[in-house]
Amino acid sequence: MNQKHKERMLTGDRVTGKLHLGHYVGSLQNRVMLQGKYDSYILLADVQALTTHFDRPDSIREHLREVALDYLAVGIDPNQATLFLQSMVPEIAELTVFFSMFVTVNSLRHNPTIKSESKGSSLDELYYGFLGYPVSQAADITFCKASIVPVGDDQLPHLELARKVVRRFNELYRPVFPEPQALISETPRLVGTDGNAKMSKSLGNAIELDITPEQLSYKIRRAVTDPARIRKHDPGHPEVCPIYAYHKVFEPSGAPEIHEACERGSIGCTECKHRLVASLNTLLEPMRERRSRYAGNPRVIDEILMEGTRRAREIARETLSEVREAMGLDYFRLPEED
Amino acid sequence: MNQKHKERMLTGDRVTGKLHLGHYVGSLQNRVMLQGKYDSYILLADVQALTTHFDRPDSIREHLREVALDYLAVGIDPNQATLFLQSMVPEIAELTVFFSMFVTVNSLRHNPTIKSESKGSSLDELYYGFLGYPVSQAADITFCKASIVPVGDDQLPHLELARKVVRRFNELYRPVFPEPQALISETPRLVGTDGNAKMSKSLGNAIELDITPEQLSYKIRRAVTDPARIRKHDPGHPEVCPIYAYHKVFEPSGAPEIHEACERGSIGCTECKHRLVASLNTLLEPMRERRSRYAGNPRVIDEILMEGTRRAREIARETLSEVREAMGLDYFRLPEED
Repeated sequence: MNQKHKERMLTGDRVTGKLHLGHYVGSLQNRVMLQGKYDSYILLADVQALTTHFDRPDSIREHLREVALDYLAVGIDPNQATLFLQSMVPEIAELTVFFSMFVTVNSLRHNPTIKSESKGSSLDELYYGFLGYPVSQAADITFCKASIVPVGDDQLPHLELARKVVRRFNELYRPVFPEPQALISETPRLVGTDGNAKMSKSLGNAIELDITPEQLSYKIRRAVTDPARIRKHDPGHPEVCPIYAYHKVFEPSGAPEIHEACERGSIGCTECKHRLVASLNTLLEPMRERRSRYAGNPRVIDEILMEGTRRAREIARETLSEVREAMGLDYFRLPEED
Repeated sequence: MNQKHKERMLTGDRVTGKLHLGHYVGSLQNRVMLQGKYDSYILLADVQALTTHFDRPDSIREHLREVALDYLAVGIDPNQATLFLQSMVPEIAELTVFFSMFVTVNSLRHNPTIKSESKGSSLDELYYGFLGYPVSQAADITFCKASIVPVGDDQLPHLELARKVVRRFNELYRPVFPEPQALISETPRLVGTDGNAKMSKSLGNAIELDITPEQLSYKIRRAVTDPARIRKHDPGHPEVCPIYAYHKVFEPSGAPEIHEACERGSIGCTECKHRLVASLNTLLEPMRERRSRYAGNPRVIDEILMEGTRRAREIARETLSEVREAMGLDYFRLPEED
C-alpha cells in the first residue's frame, strides 16, 4: 500500500544509550505493529539528547548507530518506516524558533513533565533549551505534519502543548498543520531486574536488546525475586517478584500456571528463571538474527539513516515553504532553491 | 581591499518599521563610516521582529524592502556590506537551538534588557522566544564568526551574554568562534519632535529618513520648542528645546552661535527652525537621490538582498559544518551536500 494514502505517525527516542526490554515493551513493539498501518517517521533525537548531554556529545555519537541497530533488530522495516536524524533536519530548529514566539514561559513551566524532570529545581536553574523541550517536540511532530503520535500517559502533557501550538499557528497564520492525535498505547512500565519500578540503563537494572544468551542467563540468575521466599517449597508471592512480572509480559499464556505454582511452592525460583530465560530467548532470537545481519554490514545502517533523513528533509522543505508562505516570510526564493 | 583580510562586523535591525533620524544618529551613520574598515554583515532581523510582531507578520513583510532601501539611501554600499535576511539563514535557528542547551533561564531573566523590555511583567508571562532573545543574538553574531559588534550602552548586556555563550561553546567542544568585541559607539539618543527623550516611530515623534522637504518643513514647524519662550525676543532655554538638540547633532559647528542667539532672544523660533530644516535637507538630499535611484528599480533591491543572503548562507554553512564537527554531530553527510 502506498505510504501516501496513510496517516503519518511520528515517534522517536532521545539518543542517550542502547535500548532495552523496557523500551521494547513500552514503545518499540507497538511501532513494529503499527508501521504497516501508518506512514511511520522515527526520529533519532540527537539534538534533544543534548538537553541533558550537551557536555558529552560523544555519547550521542557513540549510541546513534546502536539505537538504529536496535530499531532494525526489533523489526522496524526501513522500507515501511523512515528513520532519520534530528540534527540533520534544520527545519525542525526553524519551527522551534517560530513556535517559541507565541508559547509562554508559563505554559512550559507548568508542564508536568518539565516539572518532574527538573526534579524540583527552580525555574531559574533550568537550561533554556530544557525548558523549551515541549516546543521542540511540537516542531518534531509538525515538520512532517504527523497526525498520529503514540504516547504513554506521561507524555500526554507534551502532546497537549503540541496540539495547542498547532491550533495557535493555524489560527494566527493559516491552517498548515493537522492537529496531532494521541495514540495512547498500553505501555506497561517494565520493572527492573533489581525490583525497581522502572527498568533503566542508568540504574543498571536493564536487559538490553543486544544481550547474548549467556549474559541473559547470568542477569536473570542474579535478578531479585520474592525476598520472603527462602527455600524452594516456601509459598511465594509472585506479585512482588520481578521474574513473575516478566512472565506476565513475555509469556502471558503461561503466567497463570506459574503464579499458582509459585504460591503453592511447587516451582522453585531457579526453574522459574530458566523458563523465563527460554521465553526471552524466543523473543530475542529473531532480533539477534536481524542484528547480526545488519551489524556485519554497518554501511547499510548508514545508508538507511541517510535515505530516511533525505526523505525527512524533502518533506521538511515542503512544510517550511508552506509555513513561510503562511507567515508571509516568503519574500523571494534564492535561485539555488528553485 | 579584500574583505577577507578584514575583521568581520555584525550589525542589524529588527524589521518593524521604517528607519528615522534616531536610527541614523544611533547606528546607521556609524555603519556607513565603518563599512570600509570591517567586513560588514547587516542583518535584517525579520525573525526577531516576530518576538513582538508574531501576530502581524504582514507588517514585517511590508517594512522589509523599506528598511533595505533606508540602508541603501543612507549610503550602505552593497559592494562593501552584506545585507541579508535572518529568516533565510536557517543556520541561525540551528545555533539558537544548540546554544539554548547550555544557557540557563537564570542568566536570561536577569539580563537587564529583557527585564526592562518586558516592562515589569513576570517571567511567567513572557513568551519563550522573547526570553531567549539574547541566545538568538548570540547566534546572529556567531554564525558568521563576527568579532566586532557595534553596540550602544543599552545593548552591552546582550553582548556580554553572547561572549559567555562563545566562551562556553569553545570550552565545551572546541574553539570555533572568536569572542566578539563590543565597539561601543557614541550613540546620542535623539530626542523626539515632541520633546520626548526618545525618537520613536510608535510615539509619532520621529523624522523618517524618507521624509520629503515639504513634510520636513511641516514637521519641524509643529515641533515643540522651549515652552517658556512666548514672544520672539523672550530669552530662550536652548537646553530644553528639541530644535536646539537637533542643531547640536546635525550642524554642530553652527550650534554655539544659535545657543547664544536663543539665550539672548536675538533669533526667533521660526528662523531657528528654518535653519534646522536647511541643515537637515543638506543631510537628507543625497539620501533622497540614492533612494530615488533604487526605488525606481525595486528589482535591484531584491537582487542585493538575495546576493547578500546567498553570501551569508555560504558562510553559515561553513560555520555549521565546523560546529557539527566540534560537537561530534558530523556522523555523515548527505550526498546532496557533498
